Amino acid sequence: MTPQRQSVGRIKTRTAPALNEMPKQAEGPVLKFLPLGGCGEVTRSCYVYEYKDDIVIVDMGLQFPEEDMPGIDYIIPNVEYLIPKRKNIRGVIVTHGHLDHIGAIPHLLEPLGNPVIYTKPLTRGMILKRQEDFRGTPHPKVELVDENTKLKLGCFDVEFFHVNHNIPDSMGVVLRSPAGTVVHTGDWKFDHTPVNERPADVERLKQIGKDNVLLLVADSTGSQSPGKTISESEIQKNLDEIFTKAKGRIIAATFSSLLTRVQQLIWLAEKYDRKVLIEGTSMKQNVQVAQELGYLKIKKGTVIGREDLAHTPKEKIIVVCTGAQGEDRAALMRIANGEHKYLHLENTDSVIFSSSVVPGNEASVQRLKDILYKKAEKIFHSESMDIHASGHAKGDDLKEMIQLIKPKYFIPMHGNYFMLKLHSDLAIDAGIKKENAVIAEDGEIIVMDKNAIRKSGQKAPVNLIMVDGLGVGDVKEVVLRDRQMLAEDGIFVIISVVDSETGKVKGSPDIISRGFVYLRESRDLLSQARHLIRKVIEESTSQMHPINWTFLKDELREELGKFLFRKTERRPMVLPVIIEV
Amino acid sequence: MTPQRQSVGRIKTRTAPALNEMPKQAEGPVLKFLPLGGCGEVTRSCYVYEYKDDIVIVDMGLQFPEEDMPGIDYIIPNVEYLIPKRKNIRGVIVTHGHLDHIGAIPHLLEPLGNPVIYTKPLTRGMILKRQEDFRGTPHPKVELVDENTKLKLGCFDVEFFHVNHNIPDSMGVVLRSPAGTVVHTGDWKFDHTPVNERPADVERLKQIGKDNVLLLVADSTGSQSPGKTISESEIQKNLDEIFTKAKGRIIAATFSSLLTRVQQLIWLAEKYDRKVLIEGTSMKQNVQVAQELGYLKIKKGTVIGREDLAHTPKEKIIVVCTGAQGEDRAALMRIANGEHKYLHLENTDSVIFSSSVVPGNEASVQRLKDILYKKAEKIFHSESMDIHASGHAKGDDLKEMIQLIKPKYFIPMHGNYFMLKLHSDLAIDAGIKKENAVIAEDGEIIVMDKNAIRKSGQKAPVNLIMVDGLGVGDVKEVVLRDRQMLAEDGIFVIISVVDSETGKVKGSPDIISRGFVYLRESRDLLSQARHLIRKVIEESTSQMHPINWTFLKDELREELGKFLFRKTERRPMVLPVIIEV
Repeated sequence: MTPQRQSVGRIKTRTAPALNEMPKQAEGPVLKFLPLGGCGEVTRSCYVYEYKDDIVIVDMGLQFPEEDMPGIDYIIPNVEYLIPKRKNIRGVIVTHGHLDHIGAIPHLLEPLGNPVIYTKPLTRGMILKRQEDFRGTPHPKVELVDENTKLKLGCFDVEFFHVNHNIPDSMGVVLRSPAGTVVHTGDWKFDHTPVNERPADVERLKQIGKDNVLLLVADSTGSQSPGKTISESEIQKNLDEIFTKAKGRIIAATFSSLLTRVQQLIWLAEKYDRKVLIEGTSMKQNVQVAQELGYLKIKKGTVIGREDLAHTPKEKIIVVCTGAQGEDRAALMRIANGEHKYLHLENTDSVIFSSSVVPGNEASVQRLKDILYKKAEKIFHSESMDIHASGHAKGDDLKEMIQLIKPKYFIPMHGNYFMLKLHSDLAIDAGIKKENAVIAEDGEIIVMDKNAIRKSGQKAPVNLIMVDGLGVGDVKEVVLRDRQMLAEDGIFVIISVVDSETGKVKGSPDIISRGFVYLRESRDLLSQARHLIRKVIEESTSQMHPINWTFLKDELREELGKFLFRKTERRPMVLPVIIEV
Repeated sequence: MTPQRQSVGRIKTRTAPALNEMPKQAEGPVLKFLPLGGCGEVTRSCYVYEYKDDIVIVDMGLQFPEEDMPGIDYIIPNVEYLIPKRKNIRGVIVTHGHLDHIGAIPHLLEPLGNPVIYTKPLTRGMILKRQEDFRGTPHPKVELVDENTKLKLGCFDVEFFHVNHNIPDSMGVVLRSPAGTVVHTGDWKFDHTPVNERPADVERLKQIGKDNVLLLVADSTGSQSPGKTISESEIQKNLDEIFTKAKGRIIAATFSSLLTRVQQLIWLAEKYDRKVLIEGTSMKQNVQVAQELGYLKIKKGTVIGREDLAHTPKEKIIVVCTGAQGEDRAALMRIANGEHKYLHLENTDSVIFSSSVVPGNEASVQRLKDILYKKAEKIFHSESMDIHASGHAKGDDLKEMIQLIKPKYFIPMHGNYFMLKLHSDLAIDAGIKKENAVIAEDGEIIVMDKNAIRKSGQKAPVNLIMVDGLGVGDVKEVVLRDRQMLAEDGIFVIISVVDSETGKVKGSPDIISRGFVYLRESRDLLSQARHLIRKVIEESTSQMHPINWTFLKDELREELGKFLFRKTERRPMVLPVIIEV
C-alpha cells in the first residue's frame, strides 16, 4: 500500500453551514441557544443562553490551530453577537478547567464588560494561573459555586451537578428559564468507580429528570464509539501492573490537563516507593495549582527536584511529563532525542503513553515511538493496553444520560459535525422525537418555547478569530493564504532600478529568493531570470510615456512566474520591486 | 479534553540511526543486505542484495512527503552507493505495482545504467503507464516473470512465489546466493479466501522452507496489530450488505491502487444491476491499465461515462472514486463540497469509505466526514464495519510465515522503526535466535554468511532525495527550513535607497510584507518600521567611511527583527535590500 499524506500549506475546505431556515416567527418570548464554538469542533467551547434581556454564557474556550493555519497560536470564539448586548450578560459559567473551556477568557472579558465568572475552586485556580500571562487585561471576577449553590442570573435560576471527567471539579449546569429547564452537561462521562473524585451522581440526574426538562445540551465527543467508557479504576489497575514489572525508571507522558491521571501516577509512585519528577512547563504549572488547592494528594517527599536525581536509584524514579502527542518541544520528545537538559532515555526505562492521540498528531506520535523503541526497555501505549480512558461518555452512556434527563428537546454539542449527527441519531433512538433533536452549528440561533424548537434562521458571526503572538484577529484569510503559498514554493523578490526618463534598467537587477531553489546551485536560472527581467522592463517601457509602474510590475510578476514555472514546475510568490531614479 | 495539534512548519526530529558497529571483519565472501528505503518507513521500498560483484535490487519506490516538507512532491531512494557499482547490477525485481514500490523508477533508471526490470504483467503495465509522464528518460526494459520462472542474475538464482496483497500480481522473491537462500516477502498477507486472486500458496512456502533458508526479509506493516488479517471475502460480504440496503446512489471511495477492492465493487455493481462511474484521474488510469491487461473483469456496459448519468436512475449508479483520505483535490472531496463538475452529493446517497486512514490524514478525513454527514443518507467507514482489510499480514500471520520459511536469520522491512522492532520481537517469539534477528535501518549494510549475521558498520548515504516539480534532490534542508519559517510568520522585505556618499536614505523606505500581518490594518506599525529603518541606516553610516554594506544589512535585519517581535511577538523573515546611488 502506498501511504500518502496530505500536503501541508493548502487551504482546506471548511464546511459552510447549510442553514435549514425556518422563517416562521416565534409566538411570544422564546429561549435562545447559540453556540459560538463547540458545535462543529471538539474544542473552543462557548455556548450562549438568552431569554429576553438575560444572557448566560457557558464556557469560553480556545481551539488549537488546524494544519492549514501555520504560525497561529490558537483560535478564540467570535463574540461580535454579544458585544452590543453585553449589558445583558448576567454571568459566565465555566464547567471545568481545560483550555478548550477557559482559554479565551483573557481575551473576551474586556470586550464583554468583565462579567462575573461562576465556577468551582480548581477551575478558578486554572483561570487565574492563565491570567498571569495576560497582564493589563481586567482581573477576572470569579465567584465559587458548588452542587448546593442556587444562583439567580437574571431570569435564569441556576444550579450545578457533579459530573465525572478527567480533571477534578467538572460540573454540569441546570438553567431554569421562564421557557423551561435546560440541562447542559459540560464535558462528562459516567464513572461509577472513579479515582480522586466522586462517582457519577445518577440519583441527582434522576431528580433533575423528574422536572420536565425542556432541553438537554450534551457532550458529543464519544458519540462515534459504541459501549461504555472504561472506568479510571480499571486504568489504575493496569498502570499498577506496569509499576510492578518495571525494572528501571518509569517515564509516563500524558496531557498536562489530565490531573486525574497525574494523581493516579503519584499514588502508584507512593505505593511502590518511587519518587516523582514532574517535567514540562504546563505540567508543572497545573500540578502546582492543583496541589495548592488540595486537588492533588501528594505525600511530603514524593515529588523530587532535578537536584535529587543523582542520588535516587533509577528503579525509584518516575518522571511524569508532557509530550504524549509527539510534540517537538515537549518533555518526552526532548528526553527521547537527547535534547533534554538532564534527562536522557536509557535502555532500562519503561515509557508509558497515558493519553489518546489527537487526530492530526498520529504522524508525530509515530516518529516519537520510532525513537523510543530504539532506546527504551518497554513502551506501553493505549493501543496495546487499557492505560488511558477518555474523559467523555460513549454511546451507551450517552443514551443513558438522555433517558435519565428525559428532555423534550435535544441539542448535541462539543463535537465535529459528524459526531453531533451521530449523537442526534442516538438521541432519537433513546426516545427523543425526530423534530425535537436539532443539530445546531456554530453561529446558528436556535429558538424554543414549550411548544416547539426550531432554527431561527438568524446567524451570529462566527468567522475565526485567530491569535498569533500579540495579534488577536488580525491574521485574516489573506495572510494565511500567503503563508501557505510561501510554504509551498517560497518567494522570489526582484529588485530593479529603472531610469524613469528612458525606461532602461540601471545595473543588474537584484534577486532575493528564499524557500524556492537552492541558490548556490541555481546560478544559471538566476542569470536567465535577470536577463528576462531586463527584457520585460525595457520592452514594456519602450512604448510607455509616462511609465505605468503598476502595469510594469504586473507584467514582471506574470512573465517571471511563467518563466520560473517552465524551468522548475514550482510557483514561488514573485514580488517585483521597481526603484525609479 | 483539550485537543492540541502539532503546529506545522517546524523541522521534526528525524531519528539518527544508532549503529551498533561490529568492526569484526567477515571471513571470506559474504552476502550483503542494504535497505535504501523501507527500513524506517512504510514506504520508499528499495532493497539491495549484493554478493561479490553481483547486485540485485528489489523495488524502487517513492515516499510521500511528511508534514514538515511543504511543497515537496515525493522522496526517492538515494542510490549514491549503487552508482559507482552500476555495472554490477544484474537486475531490478519489482514485487508489485504500488507507487511506494515502483514510483522512483523513472528517476533511477538512468543513473543506474538502465538495468532490466523483472516483474509480472500488471506491475509492468503500471510502470509503463507512469513512465508516460517522464518523457526523455530511458524507456524501461521490463521482462516478465511468473511463479515458474527461474532466473539467473549473476550468482543469484531467482524464483518467485505468489503472495496476497490488495493489488493483483503481487509476488515474493527467492534469491539463492552462494552464501545461502534469501526469501524476500514483498508486501503480503495471507488470504485463504481472497477475491480476484489465488489463495495464499502455503504449500509453496512450505517447500521453500525445507530448503534451509538463510535469511527471511519480511513486511512489518502489520506487526503492531495482533491476530490475523480479515479475508477479502469477508469484506465482500459486508459490502454486499450495503448494496442490498442502499436506496439511492452509492459513492465508494478507496485508494486508486487498491485494484482488488475496485474489482469487488464492480462485481457487486453487476450483481445488483448498477452502472459504475469511475472518478479521479489516478483511479481512471489504474482501472484502464488493469482492464487492458485483463486484471479487472468488467462486463460490457457496466462502466458508464459522464454522458450516461442523466438517463441512469440514481439507484442504478455506483461511483467508484478517489479521495478516501480527505484529499482536497480528489474526487470525493470535490463531490462532497459541490466543486465537482457534474457530481454533487445528494441526501439519498450512501457513501462508502473502503480504506484505512494513513497516519497524518486523520484530521482531513474528519473534515470530509463533517461534510458528508451533513448531506448523505448513510456513511459507511471501516471503524463502524469491516469494509476494508489491510493488504498486510498481522501478528499471527507474520509468525506463521516465519514458521513456514524457517530461516536462520531474520530482518524486518517495510515499517517504521517501531514496527520493525515489534516484528523482530515476534520473530524471536517464533523461534529465531536473538542474535539472528537484526534490525537494519536505511543505509546500514548487513553482512552474513553461513556462520553469522551482523551489521558491517558501513553505511550507504541515505539523506533524503526530494522531488519538487522538475527538481530532483535540489531542495536541501536550507530551502525546507526557509519554507517552514516563511509559513510560520511570513516575510518582511525592506528596500532602501541610500546615498553612498552621505549615507542618507533617499525617499521613504519601501516595505513589502506577506504572511506577517494584514497590511491594511497595520499602517502604524509600517510607519514606525520605516522610521526605524531610516534611523538604523543613518546612525550606522554616520561613522562608516566607506559604508560597510554587509554590516549595514545585518544591522537592519537584527534591529527590525527585534522591533517587529516586540510589537507583534512574531518573527517574520526580515530581508533588507539596499540600493546604493
